[in-house]
Amino acid sequence: MIVGVVGGGQLARMMIPPAVALGVELRVLAESEGMSAALAATAVGDYRDAETVLAFAEGVDVVTFDHEHVPQEVLQRLVDAGVAVHPGPHALRFAQDKRAMRRRMAELGVAQPDWAPIDDAAALQAFLDAHGGAGVVKTATGGYDGRGVRVVRSADDAADWLAGAADGGPRLLVEELVPFRRELAQQLARRPSGEVVAWPLAQTVQRDGICAEVLVPAPRAGALAATAQEMAVRIAEGLDVTGALAVELFETDDGRLLVNELAMRPHNSGHWSIDGAVTSQFEQHLRAVLDLPLGSSAMLAPAAIMVNVIGGPAEGRMEARYAAALASQPTAKIHSYGKTARPGRKVGHVTVVGDDLDDVAYRVRAAAATFA
Amino acid sequence: MIVGVVGGGQLARMMIPPAVALGVELRVLAESEGMSAALAATAVGDYRDAETVLAFAEGVDVVTFDHEHVPQEVLQRLVDAGVAVHPGPHALRFAQDKRAMRRRMAELGVAQPDWAPIDDAAALQAFLDAHGGAGVVKTATGGYDGRGVRVVRSADDAADWLAGAADGGPRLLVEELVPFRRELAQQLARRPSGEVVAWPLAQTVQRDGICAEVLVPAPRAGALAATAQEMAVRIAEGLDVTGALAVELFETDDGRLLVNELAMRPHNSGHWSIDGAVTSQFEQHLRAVLDLPLGSSAMLAPAAIMVNVIGGPAEGRMEARYAAALASQPTAKIHSYGKTARPGRKVGHVTVVGDDLDDVAYRVRAAAATFA
Repeated sequence: MIVGVVGGGQLARMMIPPAVALGVELRVLAESEGMSAALAATAVGDYRDAETVLAFAEGVDVVTFDHEHVPQEVLQRLVDAGVAVHPGPHALRFAQDKRAMRRRMAELGVAQPDWAPIDDAAALQAFLDAHGGAGVVKTATGGYDGRGVRVVRSADDAADWLAGAADGGPRLLVEELVPFRRELAQQLARRPSGEVVAWPLAQTVQRDGICAEVLVPAPRAGALAATAQEMAVRIAEGLDVTGALAVELFETDDGRLLVNELAMRPHNSGHWSIDGAVTSQFEQHLRAVLDLPLGSSAMLAPAAIMVNVIGGPAEGRMEARYAAALASQPTAKIHSYGKTARPGRKVGHVTVVGDDLDDVAYRVRAAAATFA
Repeated sequence: MIVGVVGGGQLARMMIPPAVALGVELRVLAESEGMSAALAATAVGDYRDAETVLAFAEGVDVVTFDHEHVPQEVLQRLVDAGVAVHPGPHALRFAQDKRAMRRRMAELGVAQPDWAPIDDAAALQAFLDAHGGAGVVKTATGGYDGRGVRVVRSADDAADWLAGAADGGPRLLVEELVPFRRELAQQLARRPSGEVVAWPLAQTVQRDGICAEVLVPAPRAGALAATAQEMAVRIAEGLDVTGALAVELFETDDGRLLVNELAMRPHNSGHWSIDGAVTSQFEQHLRAVLDLPLGSSAMLAPAAIMVNVIGGPAEGRMEARYAAALASQPTAKIHSYGKTARPGRKVGHVTVVGDDLDDVAYRVRAAAATFA
């Protein structure tokens, strides 16, 4: 069993442990030498180049992804060449293009914020006028970790992006500024043959547009847990998603769930599952794209919290603080992505699982704080 | 942080996942191409050759082991060259030479079977005569998985080994045939700086001299759990063991614990900890040999059972049965060592953790049976 992963970031890296356990050969097409998943990198090259990706795909049983940026033309070339690609391009386009995603969510009847495609200032201003004078402008393609997202109060606030879009840059959309209590994430995995397994609903806490903390199960979720799962299953089946799917959700001030974003790959909101679930999202993703039966998503303890290490320590590497972190928190599971510290960069994460959410929160935050 | 592992078997392989998580660079000196730990193999060569091992050790922070067969002369050359070696040769010799080990256990006052070094038939016969006419003859060096161990009822039964020993082959010892209820294993890890963390006592079930199953915690162990831990700590400190230590024990028919064997590396009796403990033996071993603070050895569930996959399926690879195994047991954690099936060969293992030992036993045995 050979899985080819396009992209050598930390998501590919975190597929290595379950691949080793299952005896799956992982081959990674990395963007450059020394990437996070370097241990499994069998090729270095440009994922936008069809010939590079086709050559990489030779001999693998399935191609999957560390990110969603492989162009549709390249994906289609793989499919045309008879390569199994999961998720397939017909699904992945909805994680690549937020305008297509919003249209498809509407067709599927999945609750989402009011939105409109925006091709000029007049259209944007009209939407803002109809929604209290504010909105969230997004680039339809290419955004991540808070990039490509901007809160605007007039069309002028997006003048540069509008000019860019008119000039062949990313197209735009606008969404209502949703008054929300918190953000949640529902994750599942789906096999080509249709089997779906969902993890417990997670609460995600963002800082500066970047995921800072994930709490599982989402505290006091009540009936929202079942609703979130139904929404995610409807999306997975409606879009024919294969592999891991993360549905980012707003819990609105009036208690509704609205779809914020989709990711069709292992996702930051599921890193807790490495240490906190019977089957991690990385193992499950491998099983799903290989069309193997999925594993239990049950939690190993009543509570799990993951805290991202963002930026990293002044010494440049997380390892410089291991002595302090490990000594103070013997239950903390430390994950380093093998990256050099840089402001705003996710260089690792810490997870603690346990019986009591407050106790888990204390321990995981104390461990993560040693890397600041 | 760079750890060099001498030996490319499944123990080295299972160090890869925690090394990836912690951002530890693992370098493996494999015996040949295509070994179980091939993914991390940076060198292929003979571990009995000092120059090969010295060259391999260049630039690593510490050298440790997948097995105990590196000759003392080679180990000493590493130490003399200023390489950190854990466990050190002064400790490892007690895992390499059972005569030295038995002598040292006696000095430490650790309970063990009656025994005697055997250099000729007369000495063996005298021991047998004094112990009910039966005993267990062992080669002092080189034995594992039931090899180098033979139950004898007369000196004649060991004539070939005695001749071999006289001819420069492995020296021999004899031990009393202990009437025992069951076998147990106590594992711990110890840092060079002295910190010791022990896992719960395990019960091991052998078939044909090979470990078949491990149950954790050992059922109805009562006060034996504390006794086993005291014995293991005394041994670890007395021998200055660094890294993982497994103490194999007999629980005698009259309720005493006697030391059977020692292993100074991750051990089959601790594979359950990958899926069943906060800190696995493989992560703990890496932390210990790097002299990093040790992690919690607490269990993630009240019961864990590991079953070895011995021999493997007729199709030649465990992967051929994944569809059946994973579909029937979604909580089973399947571990393949990337080996081809062969009678008597450990090709993988399966672990299940849960609340109820009987339920866990049913599930793990059902999953493992699909690979027979």
